[in-house]
This record gives sequence, structure tokens and C-alpha cells, in this order.
Amino acid sequence: MPQQAPIPITKASGEQELFDPQKLARSLRKAGAQEALVERIVADTMAQLYPGMPTKKIYQQAFAQLRKATKPSAARYKLKQALMELGPSGFPFERLVGALLQVQGYQVLVGQLMQGRCVQHEVDVVAEQEGVQLLVECKYHNHQGRVSDVKVPLYIKARFDDIRHRWEDEHKGELQNGNHLFERTHKGAIFTNTRFTGDAQQYGSCSGLLLVSWDYPQQGSLRELIDTSRLYPLTSLTSLSRAEEQRLLEQGLVLCRELIGQEEALLAAGVKSQRLKGVQEEIAQLCG
Amino acid sequence: MPQQAPIPITKASGEQELFDPQKLARSLRKAGAQEALVERIVADTMAQLYPGMPTKKIYQQAFAQLRKATKPSAARYKLKQALMELGPSGFPFERLVGALLQVQGYQVLVGQLMQGRCVQHEVDVVAEQEGVQLLVECKYHNHQGRVSDVKVPLYIKARFDDIRHRWEDEHKGELQNGNHLFERTHKGAIFTNTRFTGDAQQYGSCSGLLLVSWDYPQQGSLRELIDTSRLYPLTSLTSLSRAEEQRLLEQGLVLCRELIGQEEALLAAGVKSQRLKGVQEEIAQLCG
Repeated sequence: MPQQAPIPITKASGEQELFDPQKLARSLRKAGAQEALVERIVADTMAQLYPGMPTKKIYQQAFAQLRKATKPSAARYKLKQALMELGPSGFPFERLVGALLQVQGYQVLVGQLMQGRCVQHEVDVVAEQEGVQLLVECKYHNHQGRVSDVKVPLYIKARFDDIRHRWEDEHKGELQNGNHLFERTHKGAIFTNTRFTGDAQQYGSCSGLLLVSWDYPQQGSLRELIDTSRLYPLTSLTSLSRAEEQRLLEQGLVLCRELIGQEEALLAAGVKSQRLKGVQEEIAQLCG
Repeated sequence: MPQQAPIPITKASGEQELFDPQKLARSLRKAGAQEALVERIVADTMAQLYPGMPTKKIYQQAFAQLRKATKPSAARYKLKQALMELGPSGFPFERLVGALLQVQGYQVLVGQLMQGRCVQHEVDVVAEQEGVQLLVECKYHNHQGRVSDVKVPLYIKARFDDIRHRWEDEHKGELQNGNHLFERTHKGAIFTNTRFTGDAQQYGSCSGLLLVSWDYPQQGSLRELIDTSRLYPLTSLTSLSRAEEQRLLEQGLVLCRELIGQEEALLAAGVKSQRLKGVQEEIAQLCG
């Protein structure tokens, strides 16, 4: 790989960091690009680099090259961006999180009102499996700079305590009689497509909340959960326009695999019949 | 009082309500205006009323008349606005809340870092009295439309639980041995200069938090605490300009009574010597 003096670049948060060619190479490899292609893209990127260049722009240029070479790799590479494109409402992200929990064996309900001991709460995703009830709050942001600070897990903890207290109040008799049918573990969880602050992560793990962000925890991050299950959002597809994607989201479709066999939905979203075969091929490659 | 068809007016939140002359009269009486003056201001207000008139404008016009007639009454009347003028930072409001607790016999510290079981927290006001520790969060808003929803008491509850757990961890031995020197009641509190939503109030009282807003609870609201203790913010004074008030706040002065005998601070804030006597008289009248 070529050597040159480190150049400062600008992150989405506005912070500066030195450009790290290894980091770009790793993300390209992770997306499945072959080594020769990785080296070519990194070299081209470094040739175009200037001080203060936004990481977003670097990513866009690398992505454009990757896309020319291999579509499914590009779709995986652009996953972070694809999640941003699920907005502006948080609902498609809630659906995605629900689907990720469903493939892990949970029974899932989205957008539930639940009574606590003190007040009623709206819970984005309620997931149940073998006596464990996961109460999930989804924090969707359509800007990379937006992170969730410690106040988010704090209020989620109090909310889940309130719901758990109500449930314990109601089942007091059965629990005292040792009726195991009524034993249940409640666990709070927060899924976000961006990041948590260090404080938020520390409070989350210490207080028993499950925190999942784009790249946290190391095992079981959002990126990993999506990659492993191949539950790519339809915004990952490279052969659809932004407007077509939006129209599919408005029809309530969220996942790439929900488009399999959905010719009519694709046509209704504006995909002309001469492009249909190409789009369907990409769907089959990415998530079939 | 004159009779006419009810006219809809516009609240700061954007909601419409029917203008109620009795309400205006009550607030003028509360400010200490004599009955003849109250009737005159209400009559003049109704003559100028038009559908959709902002409550703020109604208040401003009534205040202008009141001010012409009697300065200390005007200062009390404009207390709500005076609190808004404590901004833009929340620090003067924290100082005011600290002073309100101090006159109730609490020992007060402002802006403390406290270690919880999971993370460290910044607590706006820590107030202690006879084994009770009040941990206070101050929510200062400089727009009347901004209210605190249920998320605020939720995250404050979790924060105070975290601090209390840490304290209980540390004093476990003493507490088990029944050493009453180590018994302590922790109580979370939230003071705001605007309002809480109904949900927030319900969660607060159910979960044992002390919630104080402009007009809540009925006994011991912020308005009442200030009126009873005469701890008026210096922004209540009608003889100082906005700029002079700001310069005094920047010097760390917050309360009207802190200005007693502070000739130099007043001069440094831009009050010319020929106006000094008038300002000092108003200070003595309002908070001496």
C-alpha cells in the first residue's frame, strides 16, 4: 500500500481524525471485495484525499468504485447509509429490529401500549421467548452525528422498572406461591442505528439493559445481526432510486427479502419493466 | 365588570382558549393591585381584545398599565416573565432554586458530580437537612411553550436510583448493624420554570419524586415559593434594562436581594448615577 504523510479528515460529528488507509481497506474487505480491488480503491482514494475531507465523501467515492465492480459487495458496504435512508420516520427501523429478533426465535409485536405501575408507556418492540420478555426502544437517527447519551438508557431503565413493577403487583400471589408458570424475566433493550456515548454503554451494561448500536457490542452489533441473518433493508439495493425506495417503504415494505416475488410492488414504486429483471437479480443475490 | 361575548385568545403553546376576565383580574389582585386599578385594567384590556390575540400580548399590555400605577405590584406580576429572562444559560435558575431550598433550612450545594453504582452524574442542586438528601434537577426553559414530558422524571428517577444504590452499597455494613447515624432518605426532585405534562406529574407523584413547576403542586409551586420567601430574581425589577440585568447575571448575581448595598455592581452594569436612587428604592420595596 502506498505511504504518505497522515492527512486529517472530518468525521460526521465534526471531529477531526487522521485518515487511516487500513480502516478503509478493512471495511472494503468486510463487504466482500477482493484484495486487488481493495488495493486499487484505497490507492485511488489516497490520491484524491485533501485535509479536512469529510469521511462521508471518502465513503461515497470508494462506494462508487466498489459499485462499479461488484453490486452485492457494494450493498453490504453501504449498509450504514442504507439504514440512514430508512427515515424520516422511525417505523421502518422498528420493523427491521422486530425482524432481527424474530429470526432469533422471539415472538414479536411492534408499537405496543403497556401499563406501568405509574403511567402507560408506548414500547416500540415487545419480544417474547421462553419466559423472557424483551422490551425494546428503537432510537433511529438519520444523521450519523446523532448519538444517544446516558439519558436514553436512564429513562428506558425507569420505564421498564415501571412496567415490571406493575406486572409484579399483578402476579404477586402466584409468585409467592412459587408458581413457575408465572415467572418471567423482563429485560430492557435499546437498538440504535448510530452510536451510544461511553457513559450510556457503561450505564447500560451495569444496569442490565441490552444495548445494540451500529458497532456495539463487539459480538451482536446491529451490523453483525443484519449481516448474519441477511435481513438487509431494501435501501441497501443499489439498483433502486431513492424515490423508488421511499415509495416501497410507504407501502410498508422494509426488508430486501420482502421484495422477492413482489413484481407488482416494484412496478407500483416506479420501476419500469425493462429494469425489473436487473432489480430482481440484485434482490436474489443480496437476500435470496 | 363589563359583559361581552367570549373571545378566543392564543396561548403560548399555540392552543386556543376563551379569554376569561376573572383570570386576569385574579392575577392582578395577586400582584397586589387595588380593586379600582384591577377593574380599570380589565376594562381597557377587553376594549382592545381581538380574536386570536396572544396571551403574551394581553399580559404585556396589562403589565404596562400596572407598571405605570405601582412598581412592586408590577414586579410580582411579571415574575413568570422574569424567570424567562434569567436565560440563556440554566445556571441562574439553579442558583435561584438553591436559594429557595436554603431558606427552607437545607444546606445547599450547586453543580455537584456524584458517583452512582453505574456511572457518574452531575446533579444541579444537592440539598441536605436532617438525614434527608434532596437531589435536584433544574429544567430551565426560556420559552413558555416548552414543557417537560414524562421522559424527564423517568431519567431523573433512574439517575437517583443509581446514586442511591451506590450509597447503599457503601453503607451496607452500617445499615445492617442498625447504626442510625447512617440512615438517610434520598429524594429526587425536579424544578422547572415552565410546566410538566400530565403524564410527567402522574409518574412523578407515583414514583416519589418531588415535582415543582411554575404552578404545580397547588401548595408549594415555584410561584408560591418565590412569593412567600420574597426571593425575587433581579430580572423582576422594572427599573433595570434587559442589558443591565444581563450584565448583573454575568457577574453571578441572581436575586434581587443580592443587589442591596451593591452600588458598585449596579454602576458596573451600566446604571447611571442619576438613576441609581430610583433603582435602589425599587430594590428595597420589592425585596428589602
